[in-house]
Amino acid sequence: MIGRDAVLDDCAVLPVGDEYLVATTDMLHESTDFPGGMTGREIGWMGAAVTLSDIAAMGARPSLILLAVGLDSPSRLEGILVGARDCCRAYGAALAGGDLDAHGELTLVSSGIGFTKRPVRRSGARAGDLVGVVGVPGRAQAALEGYSVFREYLVTPRPRVAEGLALAAAGVSSMMDVSDGLLASLEDMRCASGLGYAIESGKIPLPQGAPPDTALRFALEGGGDFGLLFTAPPGTALPGLPELSVIGRVVETPLILVDGRPAEGTGYQHHWD
Amino acid sequence: MIGRDAVLDDCAVLPVGDEYLVATTDMLHESTDFPGGMTGREIGWMGAAVTLSDIAAMGARPSLILLAVGLDSPSRLEGILVGARDCCRAYGAALAGGDLDAHGELTLVSSGIGFTKRPVRRSGARAGDLVGVVGVPGRAQAALEGYSVFREYLVTPRPRVAEGLALAAAGVSSMMDVSDGLLASLEDMRCASGLGYAIESGKIPLPQGAPPDTALRFALEGGGDFGLLFTAPPGTALPGLPELSVIGRVVETPLILVDGRPAEGTGYQHHWD
Repeated sequence: MIGRDAVLDDCAVLPVGDEYLVATTDMLHESTDFPGGMTGREIGWMGAAVTLSDIAAMGARPSLILLAVGLDSPSRLEGILVGARDCCRAYGAALAGGDLDAHGELTLVSSGIGFTKRPVRRSGARAGDLVGVVGVPGRAQAALEGYSVFREYLVTPRPRVAEGLALAAAGVSSMMDVSDGLLASLEDMRCASGLGYAIESGKIPLPQGAPPDTALRFALEGGGDFGLLFTAPPGTALPGLPELSVIGRVVETPLILVDGRPAEGTGYQHHWD
Repeated sequence: MIGRDAVLDDCAVLPVGDEYLVATTDMLHESTDFPGGMTGREIGWMGAAVTLSDIAAMGARPSLILLAVGLDSPSRLEGILVGARDCCRAYGAALAGGDLDAHGELTLVSSGIGFTKRPVRRSGARAGDLVGVVGVPGRAQAALEGYSVFREYLVTPRPRVAEGLALAAAGVSSMMDVSDGLLASLEDMRCASGLGYAIESGKIPLPQGAPPDTALRFALEGGGDFGLLFTAPPGTALPGLPELSVIGRVVETPLILVDGRPAEGTGYQHHWD
């Protein structure tokens, strides 16, 4: 929304030497982004994870994260820093600095840098490409609606760094993360590519334990998951990743189709009152 | 406060190819950082400028800025983006992306990247080095206290990008910006180097128009200025920059001395209630 790259990709891209630097920033607020009951460590983890996920979605290796914290209470700082550091370490990034302020509502902004030989963008698909996901979309939403077995997917989401690197190496044609929800992410891809995306509900992996219609709603409309959405030319040798599913095809008609019908709603969005 | 680099330098530093990348993030809130009456454009300008100033203080050329905005009212966005873009353009950086959220209090977090062959840190001084400033510290504080002739220094501060590059090229031994105030910045340098800084009040350039004691207080304790504080080995051929003043010497005894007496207070700080 702010610059061309902010609309079209998870990260801004800058050529540096014989590689590309990717950079991104994400703002999280307690009232809108941290479900009740999260510990400081979980909040810090999530703050780093959202940015690492954006870097992963470019097919890049994360390098460093900076964390700005607007703190409502000084006692929360330590847990937040431990969580952010743990998440960075788990995915090969350094928590390299930040800024700290007192603030009425807990606010985290993480900014991150990664590097890649070949940034994978949201555009790049061609009609006929496969559409795939890594992960089971809807688990975070299921947790929000009471399926506590999925709580870890909501509060300590796993950025798909290794998976993003493997998909980039395999030659996927476009990629993004699905943290705003599967339909919303497909819509973002549609805006970037000008193409359509026809998915089959029966091929979407669903959170287990909910009634089928509810589980499909979680998967299509629920946000907060850190899976990857990608397209790949037919015949691409996709890597043997856990939780990788091919769910549809890229089509010429610029619509999001679920079982042949135009999708209604595009999932999670911030709204102005 | 978050990582070693956050304490010791204005930016985190990362070797990239035959150069160094510097990266920094700054969080600003309306109630604590934006004086009353600032326009949206001025707020956006300041958001970018604080980060460009940190990059300048490393002797680096700014490359890109990302801006996360927590907006209390959607009508403020356009002015903020115009101001941030104008500031980035004025100093050779691209406003390359960002994030947008609704928030109770206007909050800006700008993150930035720059590059340099030789990052200049807060440490690096040796006893006997000159201590210098670029700019007239205290003008922003003077504006805050009613000297409206200095308002532009408060609301559209000028990051000293060209000056930072020139000082780095001249071989200064350490550098930082003085946005937290001159004494506070000297204290930060002292913590980084373990050395002392003896300055002479008669050599500090002062905002004109205030009584001398008041002007000296503005200069020593006032924050919000975007000048540079640096040290340089004796005999360094300093560049002929406007508003460059040599104000003292680096000494072995690890104290901040003003006219030979230990300084009291270290200027602007955030406090927890």
